Amino acid sequence: MQTLGHVTPQTMAFAEPLPLRSGATLGPYELVYETYGTLNAERSNAVLVCHALNASHHVAGTYAGQERSQGWWDNLVGPGKPLDTNRFFVIGVNNPGSCFGSTGPTHVNPANGQIYGADFPVVTVEDWVDAQARLIDRLGITQLAAVQGGSLGGMQALSWTLRHPARVRHALVIASAPNLSAQNIAFNEVARRAIVTDPDFHGGHYQAHGVVPKRGLTVARMIGHITYLSDDSMEEKFGRSLRAAELAYSTQAIEFQIESYLRYQGDKFSEYFDANTYLLITRALDYFDPAGEFGGDLSAALAQARAKFQVISFTTDWRFSPQRSREIVKALVDNGHDVSYAEIAAPHGHDAFLLDDPRYHAVVRSRYDRIAQEIGA
Amino acid sequence: MQTLGHVTPQTMAFAEPLPLRSGATLGPYELVYETYGTLNAERSNAVLVCHALNASHHVAGTYAGQERSQGWWDNLVGPGKPLDTNRFFVIGVNNPGSCFGSTGPTHVNPANGQIYGADFPVVTVEDWVDAQARLIDRLGITQLAAVQGGSLGGMQALSWTLRHPARVRHALVIASAPNLSAQNIAFNEVARRAIVTDPDFHGGHYQAHGVVPKRGLTVARMIGHITYLSDDSMEEKFGRSLRAAELAYSTQAIEFQIESYLRYQGDKFSEYFDANTYLLITRALDYFDPAGEFGGDLSAALAQARAKFQVISFTTDWRFSPQRSREIVKALVDNGHDVSYAEIAAPHGHDAFLLDDPRYHAVVRSRYDRIAQEIGA
Repeated sequence: MQTLGHVTPQTMAFAEPLPLRSGATLGPYELVYETYGTLNAERSNAVLVCHALNASHHVAGTYAGQERSQGWWDNLVGPGKPLDTNRFFVIGVNNPGSCFGSTGPTHVNPANGQIYGADFPVVTVEDWVDAQARLIDRLGITQLAAVQGGSLGGMQALSWTLRHPARVRHALVIASAPNLSAQNIAFNEVARRAIVTDPDFHGGHYQAHGVVPKRGLTVARMIGHITYLSDDSMEEKFGRSLRAAELAYSTQAIEFQIESYLRYQGDKFSEYFDANTYLLITRALDYFDPAGEFGGDLSAALAQARAKFQVISFTTDWRFSPQRSREIVKALVDNGHDVSYAEIAAPHGHDAFLLDDPRYHAVVRSRYDRIAQEIGA
Repeated sequence: MQTLGHVTPQTMAFAEPLPLRSGATLGPYELVYETYGTLNAERSNAVLVCHALNASHHVAGTYAGQERSQGWWDNLVGPGKPLDTNRFFVIGVNNPGSCFGSTGPTHVNPANGQIYGADFPVVTVEDWVDAQARLIDRLGITQLAAVQGGSLGGMQALSWTLRHPARVRHALVIASAPNLSAQNIAFNEVARRAIVTDPDFHGGHYQAHGVVPKRGLTVARMIGHITYLSDDSMEEKFGRSLRAAELAYSTQAIEFQIESYLRYQGDKFSEYFDANTYLLITRALDYFDPAGEFGGDLSAALAQARAKFQVISFTTDWRFSPQRSREIVKALVDNGHDVSYAEIAAPHGHDAFLLDDPRYHAVVRSRYDRIAQEIGA
């Protein structure tokens, strides 16, 4: 299979402040983004890919001179791949509030010349969608052939169809949910408490103190990681395997391989991820609830959508279970919208949306074949 | 219904050190215990109730002058209750390593006159069973009419049937598992990391520093609490209910009722529970694996049991799911042992074993009726 090869991120500056759902504004601000493929003359083949918690604009390809720098959806996006960059112009954009390049809490607040830190305004899925829409405007694109995202990215895809109904031809909502359950919020809250009670957090202004709340971030990531994997896949991969031949009988030493793996994941994450970003993104997840303004009636909330939908879930995903995707599908069907639903029998839990499962990828490929036919790409 | 009324804990001292599975020894040591009902002349009506992570010898009844001091299984144990103290002599014993009275890490190590802290030896389910057996010896009881426990307590009941097969007539193994899954260990490990990376932990010798790692304990408890409740019961109890009429758009303020509830549970727990005890008990959970010595063959491990078994699980328990109880049942059936299994359709998750569900309690009552007939109680 061909590869996309080296890609280069770009930056676009926005002078006009972005009005936020909270009532605050953000601005001026910058968005970092990448594009792959070529925008056709009709400007009709653009696909926006929205990222989840721990990802960025770097969807596919690699960076020159950087080993193992594949984008997070490189197995799905590229020449000849299910989202084929020979036919589509693919846009990945980093959301404001992130720590991967777009304006976020590690940047300087132009209002006072200080690092934003905890003063970065609370952003929501809707705010991200509006920021993305401005970028799309500037790229001269009126209507997107598709918006696609997994998990929190799927929420953005869904939100696009509600905030900008005429601008989205197709939406691919993968391993997502119409809102967080109490249990989802609970896991987010524990992660946040681990971060904000770390003495190195300093109320979110840790950069001013020259420290980072690594302990809290590590624990937060370990909690999150458990919810990304299925019980079965964890059992198959680690089970009760010991790290050494004999038990150490210690409460603090590593005894089991799963402990070693989780600590490694947590430590690695705490080296590069920003704690305030973690708080902001988990809050954006908590807040997302398009049915909220409609008294909890998701069918009423989705009435305004005009896109055609492909919803995909994974059987062993207990974070955003198939049941949650079926709620979206039912609400779309209630409105007579064009929706296909695929429930993929995959063992990998929530992480499945990032993995190369042939049945899953066939569904995505088939959807983009249909879109290509519609737009003549 | 009659009540047990006021009960009083007792203490028994053991001069002879207890050999532990790790190779270390514990001793001299004390066990705190309570008894309810009357031991009959034949000494045949004794029932041992084993406790789980956050519990103690105080199984039933109340303490004089203390409001809301009901024992943790007071709805199940008492006069006329499923485990009827008019017929049975019930023993609750606090395990060594606990922080509720028996010798534990908050006590003085007689070897050096210092608080044990992190030096308290690592204890296992098997060690607890052996300590309990010594107590039973001193009470003049050769054979227990039953050993009963839920969760980690169920593991102790199962272990009794293997370490002291002739001394257990019946075992009630409730909401338990033959060992922890990788996911179970993972949750324990995150909780432990939250504790040991709290700067107030001081390598487990926090008492010497006059502090307590409350932040870590709080996070640990919040994680644990999520795993005790079912997704559905959390949804029904809290859903996405807000604490205030309007969103605050804050990453640190409480927005959702579930956040408020979890923080309260965590804070309350951190006020009374000992951090080293939390580490010790989660490790005892991790280590328990009777099939381990039999190459993972649970049927081979349970061959030596002589007790009659009542195994009970709850449909929405995702911590120790019915599947795990069925593994125990299958291994018992493989050996031709006398086993009944009840899978209770209850919405409350793992916590269901502590709640007053009529179908569940009917199963327990029926089992004790059978035992009473056998022993003429």
